[in-house]
Amino acid sequence: MIKAFPPALRKLIDEFSKMPGIGVRSAQRLAFHVLQSSKENTELLVRSIKEVKENIKSCSLCNNLSEEDLCAICSDRSRDRLKICVVEEPSGILAMEKSGVYDGIYHVLLGALSPIDGVGPEELKIGEFVSRVRKENIKEVIIATDFTTEGETTALYLKEILKPLKVKVTRLARGVPVGASLEYADVATLQRAFEDRKSE
Amino acid sequence: MIKAFPPALRKLIDEFSKMPGIGVRSAQRLAFHVLQSSKENTELLVRSIKEVKENIKSCSLCNNLSEEDLCAICSDRSRDRLKICVVEEPSGILAMEKSGVYDGIYHVLLGALSPIDGVGPEELKIGEFVSRVRKENIKEVIIATDFTTEGETTALYLKEILKPLKVKVTRLARGVPVGASLEYADVATLQRAFEDRKSE
Repeated sequence: MIKAFPPALRKLIDEFSKMPGIGVRSAQRLAFHVLQSSKENTELLVRSIKEVKENIKSCSLCNNLSEEDLCAICSDRSRDRLKICVVEEPSGILAMEKSGVYDGIYHVLLGALSPIDGVGPEELKIGEFVSRVRKENIKEVIIATDFTTEGETTALYLKEILKPLKVKVTRLARGVPVGASLEYADVATLQRAFEDRKSE
Repeated sequence: MIKAFPPALRKLIDEFSKMPGIGVRSAQRLAFHVLQSSKENTELLVRSIKEVKENIKSCSLCNNLSEEDLCAICSDRSRDRLKICVVEEPSGILAMEKSGVYDGIYHVLLGALSPIDGVGPEELKIGEFVSRVRKENIKEVIIATDFTTEGETTALYLKEILKPLKVKVTRLARGVPVGASLEYADVATLQRAFEDRKSE
């Protein structure tokens, strides 16, 4: 970093550069923004950062992010408690909620099976999840792990381990994204879309 | 914003969204990053933000950013104090310093002339700059304002107002960017590059 900038500014640019998706140029822009914004706005930012670190924990039931013992969804009595949707991360819940198609509850695994990284069923507490499905008398488990190798492995594992429970297990459909042109769909997606074709 | 996220997280996403070049998705990614990073790293970030606000001021000589009364460049005795380069913002100094071609000192206008926005010569303290050029016995003023309408207007104004001082006034060259193909150069740039062509 060029010495033309004072150390405090260089340090802040460094800190911003560590954040995901933030290159040196973006970090500079953010640091200048902090430098130029009002004292009140900066205090608002700093306070928000601190509050996130201090107040947010995991929902004791589903692992979603929450400031209370139970998250907003688990404590919402209008949700259908007989359907449970399994996602890898809390961001998966956000995606599902945005779609507006689902009214059940969730379970966040906080990861996906990846033997190479030492993440097995025990790390994801899949045993506890299975107990939860049994105890809460769940009728359908919708597997919404990612469509990556790890996510698919996890989906397969969940399907197998849930078999003895006689619960309905479904997986989100794979296929060509809505609005996408066939020309740009990758081979694996097209193959899957063909195999899973539906009669109209 | 979807209610699936706790209020503190939503507030932080809001704060990040206010920053330049940060959309909702990036803001979410940054907020998750804060949530997941260690307490030490978050404290480092918060401290850096505070220090930038508390410690950084303008160099009393050139308006560059500085933690001291004089910035790193003004207090560097090895710089050529007979050449002064005029830029609009401190970021202009960074760009010049990166290029490594310049060993003189700077003057930051903290803006450019823009009558429509109420920015005239007085707002940019151009009178004080002219006194500075006279007092410091400057031999060359290199105008490095932006090549925008406002920057060009400012350059023209500086050239005129410096005339009585008999100081050498130069302007950075306009032309086709190094590495760029003619095909993609815009008309105005090509016209200027042609007018300013040099004999080889």
